[in-house]
Amino acid sequence: MEDVLAYLEQHSARHLEELRAFVRIPSVSTDPQHAPDVRRAAGWVAARLGAAGLTDARVHGTPGHPVVTASWTGAPEAPTVLVYGHYDVQPPDPLDRWDTPPFEPTQRGGLLFGRGVSDDKAPLLIPIRVAEAFLQTRGALPVNVKFLFEGEEEIGSPHLAAFVQAHVAQLQADFVLSADGGMWRADLPTLTVSARGLAALEFTVRGPGQDLHSGRHGGGLHNPLHALARMIASLHDAEGRVAVAGFYDDVLPLSPEVRADTAALPFRDEAYLREVGAPGTFGEPGYSTLERQWYRPTLEVNGLWGGYTGEGSKTVLPGEARAKITCRLVPGQDPARVREQIRASLRRHTPPGVTVTFGDGEHGAPAYSIPPDHLGLRVAQEALRAVYGRDPLRVGMGGSVPICDTFRDVLGMDTVFLSFAVGDENIHAPNEFFRLARLQEGAHAWAAYFGALARSRDLAGQAGG
Amino acid sequence: MEDVLAYLEQHSARHLEELRAFVRIPSVSTDPQHAPDVRRAAGWVAARLGAAGLTDARVHGTPGHPVVTASWTGAPEAPTVLVYGHYDVQPPDPLDRWDTPPFEPTQRGGLLFGRGVSDDKAPLLIPIRVAEAFLQTRGALPVNVKFLFEGEEEIGSPHLAAFVQAHVAQLQADFVLSADGGMWRADLPTLTVSARGLAALEFTVRGPGQDLHSGRHGGGLHNPLHALARMIASLHDAEGRVAVAGFYDDVLPLSPEVRADTAALPFRDEAYLREVGAPGTFGEPGYSTLERQWYRPTLEVNGLWGGYTGEGSKTVLPGEARAKITCRLVPGQDPARVREQIRASLRRHTPPGVTVTFGDGEHGAPAYSIPPDHLGLRVAQEALRAVYGRDPLRVGMGGSVPICDTFRDVLGMDTVFLSFAVGDENIHAPNEFFRLARLQEGAHAWAAYFGALARSRDLAGQAGG
Repeated sequence: MEDVLAYLEQHSARHLEELRAFVRIPSVSTDPQHAPDVRRAAGWVAARLGAAGLTDARVHGTPGHPVVTASWTGAPEAPTVLVYGHYDVQPPDPLDRWDTPPFEPTQRGGLLFGRGVSDDKAPLLIPIRVAEAFLQTRGALPVNVKFLFEGEEEIGSPHLAAFVQAHVAQLQADFVLSADGGMWRADLPTLTVSARGLAALEFTVRGPGQDLHSGRHGGGLHNPLHALARMIASLHDAEGRVAVAGFYDDVLPLSPEVRADTAALPFRDEAYLREVGAPGTFGEPGYSTLERQWYRPTLEVNGLWGGYTGEGSKTVLPGEARAKITCRLVPGQDPARVREQIRASLRRHTPPGVTVTFGDGEHGAPAYSIPPDHLGLRVAQEALRAVYGRDPLRVGMGGSVPICDTFRDVLGMDTVFLSFAVGDENIHAPNEFFRLARLQEGAHAWAAYFGALARSRDLAGQAGG
Repeated sequence: MEDVLAYLEQHSARHLEELRAFVRIPSVSTDPQHAPDVRRAAGWVAARLGAAGLTDARVHGTPGHPVVTASWTGAPEAPTVLVYGHYDVQPPDPLDRWDTPPFEPTQRGGLLFGRGVSDDKAPLLIPIRVAEAFLQTRGALPVNVKFLFEGEEEIGSPHLAAFVQAHVAQLQADFVLSADGGMWRADLPTLTVSARGLAALEFTVRGPGQDLHSGRHGGGLHNPLHALARMIASLHDAEGRVAVAGFYDDVLPLSPEVRADTAALPFRDEAYLREVGAPGTFGEPGYSTLERQWYRPTLEVNGLWGGYTGEGSKTVLPGEARAKITCRLVPGQDPARVREQIRASLRRHTPPGVTVTFGDGEHGAPAYSIPPDHLGLRVAQEALRAVYGRDPLRVGMGGSVPICDTFRDVLGMDTVFLSFAVGDENIHAPNEFFRLARLQEGAHAWAAYFGALARSRDLAGQAGG
């Protein structure tokens, strides 16, 4: 392994420049205006795979944003992993909260700031760099590696399932190794054993046919902003439980083991509140903060707006108001059913004098969890011990990786997370950053993973588990 | 009067061109970026007064936007009126809802579209044109006329009171004749006998110190959007009453006469709902739509926003959410007290895990009403009868003209409304327009008003009433 690690060390400056170039591409998948940038990012990734020595790197068109694949399958006796990641990023809004431009990567101390640098551009580059290091130093990888990078993760991967379906043979592997995900803490190696699902919807409350003068008309018509507020307030009870009828019906209860593991983690509400700058915790009664964030479902309004939002005041009774919602789901919940429950609840709570309609942007994915004794987890445990000198802790993931379900359903493959992003790196927020030291730590771990997997003997019994 | 009316007829095309030029100036008083445009509009009005033959037209600087004055006092035995209007306009947002650009006045049929054309640029020009017609045809007006035009009406006239205070002698008159206000219906002459007051405030709900990923953090922190919705929902009960403690305490009850007059007006909810395109009426139980809109106080959210409001979805748990509120007040209510009641109510309803702060933009004005037998109303009745051949109906005004209170308190003068805008002309909304026929109707009425006032004999007993 020394040769591989030495190569990575020697080429670290170039690899950092490559990361900067990658981050400069504003591959915002949710915004149609950025579609050309998303395509450009796909091309960049394919070229980078080629430069690493993967001769079959390809950009595949889809009805949405492209998929990029490559593979090295020169070790027929060894196991095969499918490396997953995404090259698209969240929108940078609100722009005025960034200290430096989101698409001009800026280093301050050991941190590199930029939209997408942590989610998921730096983590995605790590396995490519490791493949390059093996191929350039030894001409071979210890295991077979297939790469699958998509450009629609941030919008719910609407076209990935069809792509996977159409490429079952090419993508077949023993399991998926995801470069997306993120470690819980920068100072602790962790293994993620579950991820929450997602259910997204949008709605519009309409009153008068257009904006009206609130002096002339106010008092006689239902202001859609008032109605929207009342409808959103109806979605939770005062203590923080989701108040949508049926929402918790299919939720599997938390096992005593998981509750005990979680309670044993080094986590204190006070320290967490200092980290995020919030005045207090709040949420579903009967659960700890980590349980609420990892293992319990949520309903969050991600945006709402209506009326005049500019400088000064404008006495308007607006014609409409809108809100965007995403739920985080846990095992047992069906995204489509949850969306329907929310629509029904909002319809039931629509007050007189306004109407509600449901818009575009509906998508979802069920929650995911991996069997606790999966080979891929055990190999990860060994690789992380090699890098950090201690056993990783097992944690949940509050966020979602919707494609886990696709991989399980279509390819029969579980997903192991091996990302070197950290959950505090402002992903989906202004001033997203990545800890540069983890470019090397992560590469070391991925190299160790490939080595340990090659040495593993009882694969057959685990594959497809 | 024939000579004056003939002059107005002959010069109508030029007067219309002047109105277009006036509307082209985007004198948006609430937006600091438009301050130069507001100054430009003030200069335009002063020049227009000068062109009418008023030799002392002046632009006065204030700490905010300028005031424009002029006067003709060549009839020492005759009464004196102070003509009021405003040359500033509301912001044009939302821009995408305008059929033609807001500051490019566009004629379609008998309507002229543009921001501020109805509120208050065309109505403000009418008395200037009438003064011009008298001065150019007869060299004199039938009564003494002073003009006072401000540039801050749409932001609550923050500097007008101080200006009036500093110019008490120059502005002294028998009463104010306001070119701002608006008729109730295009097909019915009406006299406005009251206007609601205003109380404006803004607040911000803050949770975490910055936007967070709603997957990682959702469930453990109070989402400021949820808190904002709950707080706004607390401001009304489910039936539409304002639920702020003490809000109705100082409200004077509606007199049986006013209720009877209002019930007798030609108004049907069904026709009104068709006009505004709303699915139903809604508001404080126990009152008719017109009573709710003219004589009962309201609390309206004019804008609210937070989180991601762009295309597609963004899974953010935002750091803050904001709302703008204006109340319409009725006689008895004190704007400062109402604002304090709302702040107290919002503080009381602030849920755990977030904080509330109150921002800029607080302003207000009490409601206004004029004694029903005021001379200025009786003269208006005569002038409108001369133009329309029937007695005007007495109506309330849902909107606010905050300066009425200043005129009464500082100058001891009541305000009579003589505006030829109509309440359905999309003021404060996209596609604001003015009915061009009313340029001549209004000029006829103002000319008739000046004539009738000159003939009135019992002025002394009414002045300052």
